[in-house]
Amino acid sequence: MAIKRKKVSVIGAGFTGATTALMVAQKELADVVLVDIPDMEDPTKGKALDMLEAGPVQGFDANITGTSNYEDTKDSDLVIITAGIARKPGMSRDDLVSTNAKIMKTVTKEIVKYSPDCLIVVLTNPVDAMTYAVFQESGFPKNRVIGQSGVLDTARFRTFVAQELNLSVKDITGFVLGGHGDDMVPLIRYSYAGGIPLEKLLPQDRINAIVERTRKGGGEIVGLLGNGSAYYAPAASLTEMTEAILKDQRRVLPSIAYLEGEYGYEGIYLGVPTILGGNGIEKVIELDLTDDEKADLDKSADSVKNVLKVLS
Amino acid sequence: MAIKRKKVSVIGAGFTGATTALMVAQKELADVVLVDIPDMEDPTKGKALDMLEAGPVQGFDANITGTSNYEDTKDSDLVIITAGIARKPGMSRDDLVSTNAKIMKTVTKEIVKYSPDCLIVVLTNPVDAMTYAVFQESGFPKNRVIGQSGVLDTARFRTFVAQELNLSVKDITGFVLGGHGDDMVPLIRYSYAGGIPLEKLLPQDRINAIVERTRKGGGEIVGLLGNGSAYYAPAASLTEMTEAILKDQRRVLPSIAYLEGEYGYEGIYLGVPTILGGNGIEKVIELDLTDDEKADLDKSADSVKNVLKVLS
Amino acid sequence: MAIKRKKVSVIGAGFTGATTALMVAQKELADVVLVDIPDMEDPTKGKALDMLEAGPVQGFDANITGTSNYEDTKDSDLVIITAGIARKPGMSRDDLVSTNAKIMKTVTKEIVKYSPDCLIVVLTNPVDAMTYAVFQESGFPKNRVIGQSGVLDTARFRTFVAQELNLSVKDITGFVLGGHGDDMVPLIRYSYAGGIPLEKLLPQDRINAIVERTRKGGGEIVGLLGNGSAYYAPAASLTEMTEAILKDQRRVLPSIAYLEGEYGYEGIYLGVPTILGGNGIEKVIELDLTDDEKADLDKSADSVKNVLKVLS
Amino acid sequence: MAIKRKKVSVIGAGFTGATTALMVAQKELADVVLVDIPDMEDPTKGKALDMLEAGPVQGFDANITGTSNYEDTKDSDLVIITAGIARKPGMSRDDLVSTNAKIMKTVTKEIVKYSPDCLIVVLTNPVDAMTYAVFQESGFPKNRVIGQSGVLDTARFRTFVAQELNLSVKDITGFVLGGHGDDMVPLIRYSYAGGIPLEKLLPQDRINAIVERTRKGGGEIVGLLGNGSAYYAPAASLTEMTEAILKDQRRVLPSIAYLEGEYGYEGIYLGVPTILGGNGIEKVIELDLTDDEKADLDKSADSVKNVLKVLS
Repeated sequence: MAIKRKKVSVIGAGFTGATTALMVAQKELADVVLVDIPDMEDPTKGKALDMLEAGPVQGFDANITGTSNYEDTKDSDLVIITAGIARKPGMSRDDLVSTNAKIMKTVTKEIVKYSPDCLIVVLTNPVDAMTYAVFQESGFPKNRVIGQSGVLDTARFRTFVAQELNLSVKDITGFVLGGHGDDMVPLIRYSYAGGIPLEKLLPQDRINAIVERTRKGGGEIVGLLGNGSAYYAPAASLTEMTEAILKDQRRVLPSIAYLEGEYGYEGIYLGVPTILGGNGIEKVIELDLTDDEKADLDKSADSVKNVLKVLS
Repeated sequence: MAIKRKKVSVIGAGFTGATTALMVAQKELADVVLVDIPDMEDPTKGKALDMLEAGPVQGFDANITGTSNYEDTKDSDLVIITAGIARKPGMSRDDLVSTNAKIMKTVTKEIVKYSPDCLIVVLTNPVDAMTYAVFQESGFPKNRVIGQSGVLDTARFRTFVAQELNLSVKDITGFVLGGHGDDMVPLIRYSYAGGIPLEKLLPQDRINAIVERTRKGGGEIVGLLGNGSAYYAPAASLTEMTEAILKDQRRVLPSIAYLEGEYGYEGIYLGVPTILGGNGIEKVIELDLTDDEKADLDKSADSVKNVLKVLS
Repeated sequence: MAIKRKKVSVIGAGFTGATTALMVAQKELADVVLVDIPDMEDPTKGKALDMLEAGPVQGFDANITGTSNYEDTKDSDLVIITAGIARKPGMSRDDLVSTNAKIMKTVTKEIVKYSPDCLIVVLTNPVDAMTYAVFQESGFPKNRVIGQSGVLDTARFRTFVAQELNLSVKDITGFVLGGHGDDMVPLIRYSYAGGIPLEKLLPQDRINAIVERTRKGGGEIVGLLGNGSAYYAPAASLTEMTEAILKDQRRVLPSIAYLEGEYGYEGIYLGVPTILGGNGIEKVIELDLTDDEKADLDKSADSVKNVLKVLS
Repeated sequence: MAIKRKKVSVIGAGFTGATTALMVAQKELADVVLVDIPDMEDPTKGKALDMLEAGPVQGFDANITGTSNYEDTKDSDLVIITAGIARKPGMSRDDLVSTNAKIMKTVTKEIVKYSPDCLIVVLTNPVDAMTYAVFQESGFPKNRVIGQSGVLDTARFRTFVAQELNLSVKDITGFVLGGHGDDMVPLIRYSYAGGIPLEKLLPQDRINAIVERTRKGGGEIVGLLGNGSAYYAPAASLTEMTEAILKDQRRVLPSIAYLEGEYGYEGIYLGVPTILGGNGIEKVIELDLTDDEKADLDKSADSVKNVLKVLS
C-alpha cells in the first residue's frame, strides 16, 4: 500500500545505456538497474556508482546499480534494451542481424522472467527487426513492446533546422515515418518552425539537404567520432519515451509499433506516429499519405521485411 | 545592449569534459565550446554535435560546438580545464606533474589570449598544483582561478552516507578540507543528515569506513572501470561550481583557493570552504580547527608544496 | 567585470504581477522587484517576503523585494507592466482606456528614468493600445516594447485541444494573430497535435467550439471566479516571454509588435508571430494570409485603431 | 497493469490550497483535484481552469480540476487539508479550535470514504490539534496522517539567515521542534550555513533576532498583507512534503507526528524530526535535548494539550 518508486532496467551498459541511466535518474523518473554481461560487471558497477555519486550534486534521488544478474531487474516497470553489437568492418548485415537477434532472445527471456508485466523499449539496431524479435520472444501484447527511432531522427532534423534558421529548438518540430536512417520517410509538410510549415521558411534545396543530413545523421557522428557511435541524443530519446510512459503523458511521438493493418501493413514493426502513455503504445495514428510518401513507406517496410527474413 | 547568452569553454573533450559540456547545456547556463587538440578535433566535433542533437528532446537551448581552435573560445565568461594526461603504469608522479603542468601553461596562454576577463575552474590532477600553475601563467587575480576537488569528495561522502542510512541525498551534507583523495581532511563534526551530526547517527567505525572509502573514491571507480576514471560525478561537480558563479549564487562550497595567510598558509592553492559567486571566490571562510584537524591539514599542505617543487 | 544576476521589475503587484514574480524567481531567471502604489506598499512587501520564504523550499536563489519606490527598479534588464484597473460595472470602455493609458504614462516615465536600457513587456488591457502608449511614452526603439496576448490565447487554445483529444499539452500547438480575446484571429491551419493539423483530428464544429471558447477564455475565468480575473496562465505567459528574452532563446512566439508596413499596417501595435530574443522582438514574421484571415485581421486592426483614437 | 498518474486532492481552494495545487502540478507530481464547499464551486473551478491553462506554457502535464463533490477525489494517493477558517477579530481561540475541528471531521469523513488508503497532510491551524483531529476521525494508522509546520518555520528561518549572511538559501539549514510559530523550539546548534554552525557565523543577538522574527513569521506577513495570511511559502512547504512522499524520497524533514513515547510524550501530535517517504512518516527521529530545549518542548507540548482539551 506504500508508495514505491518506479523501476527502470537498462540492458546494455555501453555509452547509450549508461547515458540513458543517467538521464532517467536526473529526472527522478525511477530507480535504475544497469545490466551488462558478466565480463563487464565491474565496469557496469563502476559507471553506476559514478552516476550515483553525481546525485547529491545534481539533486536527484534515484538509486542506480550495476549488475550482470537479471534477478536485480525484478519487477521493473519498464526495460530499455540497448544491448547488441555494432556492425564491424567485414561483417555482413545478415551476420549483424543474426547476432543481435540472438542477443535479443537471450535478453528478453531474462526480462520476461523477472518482470512479466513490464513495458519494453528497444534501441538495438537494426531496430525495427530487433523490436520484432523482442516482441516475438516476449509473448507480450503489442502495446508493451516499442522501438525507438523516430524521436532521434526528428531530434536531429530539428537541430539542423534550428541551426539553419537560428531559432530555438523548442519551436521546431519534425515528422518522420518508416525505418531508421536511410529508410526514414520525412513528412516535411508536417514539419514546422513555430507552427509555420518549413516549406514557407526554407527553400526546397535547403530542406532537401537537411533531410539528407538527417538520414545520414548516425553516420555523421560515427564518421566524426572515428571509433564508436552517437549516444547522447539516442539516450535523450529513450528517456523522453520512458518519461511519456512512466508519467502516462499521452505524448504524440513517433514509435516503432506493431502494425496489424495500419497503413496497409500486417505483422511488422515500423516507425509510425503513436500516442505513448501508461499502456505503452496507446494508439497508432493513421494519416493519409501522398502517393510519393506511401511509395517511400512501402520501400521502408520492404527493407524491414527483408531483414526479418534473416530471422525466420 | 542586447542581452546575450553566457559562454563557457571546456578544455579537454574527454569523458569528463564532454559530460560537463552536456550538464552545463542541460541547465541552459551558457553556450558551450568544447576544445581539444587538433588530432582530436573530429571526435570533439562529433561529441558536441551528438549533444546538440539531444537539445530538442531534453528541451535545452544552448549551442554546443567542438573545436581545436582557441579562437572559438573568444569572450568566454568561464573556462573549465579538464585537459591533461592520466598517470600511466610506470610513469613517476613527477613526470605526471611536469607533463600536466606544461599542458596547463599552453592551455592557459590560449585562454587568457581570447578571454582576458574570464573565470577559470581547474579539474586536472594533481589539481591543487595544476590550479596553481594556471594561476601563475594567467596572471589573473586569485579570485578568478579556482580548483575543484571538495565538491566531488563531499558528493561521494554524501552518497555513501545516504546509502548507509537509507536517506535522501538531498539531506546529507559533508565537509572536507585539504587536498583531493588521500590528502582529504574530512570534518565529520560538520557533516550531517537532516542537520543531525553524523556522529549521533552512525557508530564511529562506520564513519571511519565511509571516510576511508571517500578518500579512495576515485580509485574505487578506476578499479571497477578497469580502463579510465570517474567522469559523471566530477562533471556534476564542475557544473555546480559553474552554476554558482554564472548565477552569482554565493554558494558555500569547498574550492581549491589561493591562500595568503588563511589557515596559516602562504602562497599555495588548497581546498578550503569558500563563497562562490559572480566574482569567483568571493571569500575564503576560516574555521577554527582542532589540533588533529590542523595537523592533517598541514600534512595535506605539505603534500601540495612537494608537488609544487617539481614545478619550480 | 563580475557576473551579476539579471534584474526584472514587475509593475503592479496584483495577482498576475505577484504570480509572475514567483514564476520568474522559480526559474532563477533574475532577481525580482515587485512594485505597486504607495498605498499598497505593505501588501506588496508582504507578498514579496512570502515568496522569498518559498525559496529555500523550492530551491531557488532569487531576491524578491516589494516596493512603491521606482528607484528600487534601477538598472532592470526587463520590466513587466501589469498595473492598471479592470473595467468596472458602469464604466465605459473609453474611460477604461483613458485611465489605464494615464497609468501607462506615469509608470513608463518612472521605468525609463531608472532603466533607460531595459526591455518592456506589457500585459495591461486593452493591451494593444496600452503597449502603444508605453512605446510612445518611452521613446524606446520598437523592438524593446512588447505586448503579451498571443501566448496566453494559444495556451488556452492548446489546453482545450489537449482535453478534447486527451493528449499531452506538450504536443499541441496553436497559432493566433490580431487582438486579444474577441478580436483574436486563429490560424487553425497552423495548429497541430503532434504535428498533425487539427483539421485532420477534429471535426470542424468541435474546432469552432474550441476557438469560440478561446476567444471568451478570459471571460470564462471571470465568470467562474465571480470576483477577479485570470492570473495563473497570464503570469506563465509573461514568464515565458521573459525567459525567451533573458536567455536570448530566439523563440517563435506571438507578440504584440509595432508594425511598420508588415501585414499592410502602419504605426500600430498588433499581435503577430515574432522571434523573441535578447533584443526583444528580433523580427516580425510575415505570413501569407487567406482573404478570410486578412479580413479578420483588418477587423482586429480596426478595433485597435479605434481604441487608439481615444488616446490621441 | 497500466501505469497511472498519481492523484493528489487539495481540500480548501483558498490561496494556500490553490498555490499548492499549482506547485504540485508544476512538478508533475500528480493530477490534482481542488475541493471547496458548494458555495465556492465556481471560483474553485475557475482557479483550477486558470492553472490548467498555464500547463502548455510551463510545460507540465497534470490534470487540475475544481469541484465541491468529494466523489471526484476518489482513489487519491495523498490528500492535503488546507480548509478551515482564520481567526477573526473578536473570536476566541477556543471558538476557532471548535470550528476548525468540526471542519476537519466533516472533511476527513469524506476523504476516508473515497480514498481509504491515502496519506493525509494537514495545514489547518492550530495545526497540531487539527492533525490530531484528522487522525482521530480517519482511523488511519499514525504514519499516514501528518501535519505541516516545521518545513515552513525552517524555510522562514533559512530565508532570514541567507539575507543576513548574503548567502545562497541552498546552503542554509535550520532545525525546529515543537509547535508552530510562538511555540516553535529552534535548535540553533543544528542550524548551519554551508555546514558551519550558525553560532560561529553570527553573534548571539543576531541569531536571537532571527529566531524571534521566525516565531512571528506568520504574523509578519499577516501584518503586511493587512487582509489575509501567507500562502506562497506554506504551499511550497506542503509541496515539498508531498514530493518526499510521492517519490518515496526518505527525506529528513520536520513533521507534526503522532508520538507514542518519543521525546517522553504520549498520544499527542507534535513537531519532530521525521523521515518522510512512501509510507508517510517512516520514522520519528529522537534526539538528545538539553534541559532548556526539553523545557521549551514541554511548554510547546502543554500548549498543544491545552488546545486538545477544547476538542474533547
